[in-house]
Amino acid sequence: MIDIIHRVGIKAPVAKVYEALATVEGVAGWWTRETTGVSRPGGNIGVRFLRPNGEQMGGMTMDVVALDPNKAVRWRVSAGPEEWVGTDVTFDLSQAGEYTIVLFGHKNWREAVEFTAHCSMKWATFMLSLKELVETGRGRPSPQDIKVDDWN
Amino acid sequence: MIDIIHRVGIKAPVAKVYEALATVEGVAGWWTRETTGVSRPGGNIGVRFLRPNGEQMGGMTMDVVALDPNKAVRWRVSAGPEEWVGTDVTFDLSQAGEYTIVLFGHKNWREAVEFTAHCSMKWATFMLSLKELVETGRGRPSPQDIKVDDWN
Repeated sequence: MIDIIHRVGIKAPVAKVYEALATVEGVAGWWTRETTGVSRPGGNIGVRFLRPNGEQMGGMTMDVVALDPNKAVRWRVSAGPEEWVGTDVTFDLSQAGEYTIVLFGHKNWREAVEFTAHCSMKWATFMLSLKELVETGRGRPSPQDIKVDDWN
Repeated sequence: MIDIIHRVGIKAPVAKVYEALATVEGVAGWWTRETTGVSRPGGNIGVRFLRPNGEQMGGMTMDVVALDPNKAVRWRVSAGPEEWVGTDVTFDLSQAGEYTIVLFGHKNWREAVEFTAHCSMKWATFMLSLKELVETGRGRPSPQDIKVDDWN
């Protein structure tokens, strides 16, 4: 199985970082403004990505598998791009001095394809967006996200 | 073996992107200003990363394994952090409309450790730096690089 993993350090208390990951409002502040649903174990959240003209580019449903306060958030993808369905998205939190460390994983891809490499870049930009959101109050969720290539 | 892979699209002719990857001057414009050596097959390039006070944070030697004009650049790490030695750094170029696509790989890590996740984030920021350098003439090489966590 293929995993995307990223490490980011955020100068903020762990509770603030956890809130940005464990609530629909939080996720809407760094991933995509079009985030809906119920963030609790057994619930799911839906994310949609729009083009500047409002047309939908893509979307996914993430089943909320675990919410462990100030420690971990885990989702399983139940709908979306074929390569994503059945994969796991995980955020593990710890503290290092004045930083909250987020170990991000998008795990259990069936193979490493060009789309995996694209998603690895996009996740990195969204982790920078999460860091900005928590540190400054303003992230870069879609459609204000950083564009990395011809796909998005 | 564990691979970091990223995909970036740069609005520029492939020859300009290749030059930024295949020459010491090019690499100094997006990765680290402290780049030296000879970029030709059989040669090697050295990169160093400095703290704001000028103190050295780290460095590596990359043996130049292949320079395939407008197609690929491949390095093998011969000195540096223990986890890096023996790994391969690869850039494969192709064209998609007005974009040059860079498929980046840092391949053959022995295991996926927290440092791998850190390096995945840092490589993503350096790929954004490469894109900025080629598209605008100004990248963000170290020590002007984007900081991602408490390690760098």
